[in-house]
Amino acid sequence: MDKVRRNERMSAMMKLLASSPNQIFTLNSFCEIFGSAKSTMSEDIDLLRTVLEQYDLGRIDTVTGAAGGVRFRPIVSRARARETIEGICRLLSGPERLLPGGFLYNSDILSTPDIVNQMGAILATEYYDREPDFVLTMETKGIPVAFATANALGVPLVIARHSSKVYEGSAVNINYVSGSGNIETMSLSRRAVRENQHALIVDDFLRGGGTARGMVELMREFNISVIGMAFVMATLEPENKRVSGAKTLMTLRVTDSDPAEAIVTPADWL
Amino acid sequence: MDKVRRNERMSAMMKLLASSPNQIFTLNSFCEIFGSAKSTMSEDIDLLRTVLEQYDLGRIDTVTGAAGGVRFRPIVSRARARETIEGICRLLSGPERLLPGGFLYNSDILSTPDIVNQMGAILATEYYDREPDFVLTMETKGIPVAFATANALGVPLVIARHSSKVYEGSAVNINYVSGSGNIETMSLSRRAVRENQHALIVDDFLRGGGTARGMVELMREFNISVIGMAFVMATLEPENKRVSGAKTLMTLRVTDSDPAEAIVTPADWL
Repeated sequence: MDKVRRNERMSAMMKLLASSPNQIFTLNSFCEIFGSAKSTMSEDIDLLRTVLEQYDLGRIDTVTGAAGGVRFRPIVSRARARETIEGICRLLSGPERLLPGGFLYNSDILSTPDIVNQMGAILATEYYDREPDFVLTMETKGIPVAFATANALGVPLVIARHSSKVYEGSAVNINYVSGSGNIETMSLSRRAVRENQHALIVDDFLRGGGTARGMVELMREFNISVIGMAFVMATLEPENKRVSGAKTLMTLRVTDSDPAEAIVTPADWL
Repeated sequence: MDKVRRNERMSAMMKLLASSPNQIFTLNSFCEIFGSAKSTMSEDIDLLRTVLEQYDLGRIDTVTGAAGGVRFRPIVSRARARETIEGICRLLSGPERLLPGGFLYNSDILSTPDIVNQMGAILATEYYDREPDFVLTMETKGIPVAFATANALGVPLVIARHSSKVYEGSAVNINYVSGSGNIETMSLSRRAVRENQHALIVDDFLRGGGTARGMVELMREFNISVIGMAFVMATLEPENKRVSGAKTLMTLRVTDSDPAEAIVTPADWL
């Protein structure tokens, strides 16, 4: 085989690392692929690290120890996060997306891959340090952004359902009080998770916090600790949610004017 | 600014292209980012193209014309697709995942990002030429793989629901006969799609084809043509499905033995 050039190695490594976020690649695995010495690969990785930093495209970490290697994390700088979320807020604000009852139509935004992946990376950036074992969401609308967050974190997604399904096997069901005050059911397959894991809850919308509270209780049934809660959007009202410590990307306020307008703004922490 | 080296430019371009599959980047946009001449960028892109080919990591196409530029497609070679699907079949086969009634537990596989992204890229590879405007799926289990397919195709995901929701606005509802013979409802927001678009249907499971048939009828209500149907898994029985022309990744057969076993095999076309 011809000698592989540095620019070729670096481009291929960039692709491999970026396609499997947060997964550790050993230097040896790269040495095998490219037929290069370890010292050469180290230099390549140092260069890649600098490139990513320079263009604000994520981060490469070196993990030491027996299971060590390098990993790519699609870390989003605070400045880029704010710019991204401001752009999404502009898409959502105004009178056009308001529905009867003051609801906001945002299903398109919540399933457009480019937007969803950016939101997922911003949320993941906040939770790498907490090392969640999986992302938990409640069907349906939050699934894409929860999946994108799980992808960026390199962990599985777990989906709670409104009712138990024959193809999920035996399940734990709980009842919870939904935002509209109804008693609803939430179901999770026993096979989906294991005791003592750490869950990150991700969902699309936080109003009263009933569903979020339900997910916390569901995790308690499995002896799983919730290490964080993240939402795409929260309403200003009610001010007191049934859960605390939730991180949201945007805040929604609906004006009393005629026609009413949706005012969507980036969360303060951004 | 210091002159950007070729290996730095190529790595950053690889990252940018791979993060937005199927999106066209103009040469000018790269020239601006890296402060290089167009001829230099063309050479970089030619090198990137060769690297991707050499390591079977996808493909860079040049698109000519006024809106021209380059785009990355995570094209999966047939050999790599088959190897990937064979690996997933091994995870799913055996007696452990079988549930009462002959159902197969596969929710974990269907929401593990690494696996889901690979399946999405394999499915997208088959449909780039048909140029779908969006991917349609029916809640819930198929959403992650439909999202990954949409991501690889660079198009939005559209999610049909079991019932209409206040936060989806006015909707079109249809009734369809499900696999179990029940009459069920399928609902889609009027805002989700536009007349004369082209839909690619993606879902997790094809048994009788009732739900798939429902999605085809739903699209007819919107004057949208279905340009393809793709499923993660199909059952051998019933042999005659209510839809034709569906592409599946795997086939499921459950043995009559005691204990029964799931035999999951890659589809013939792979």
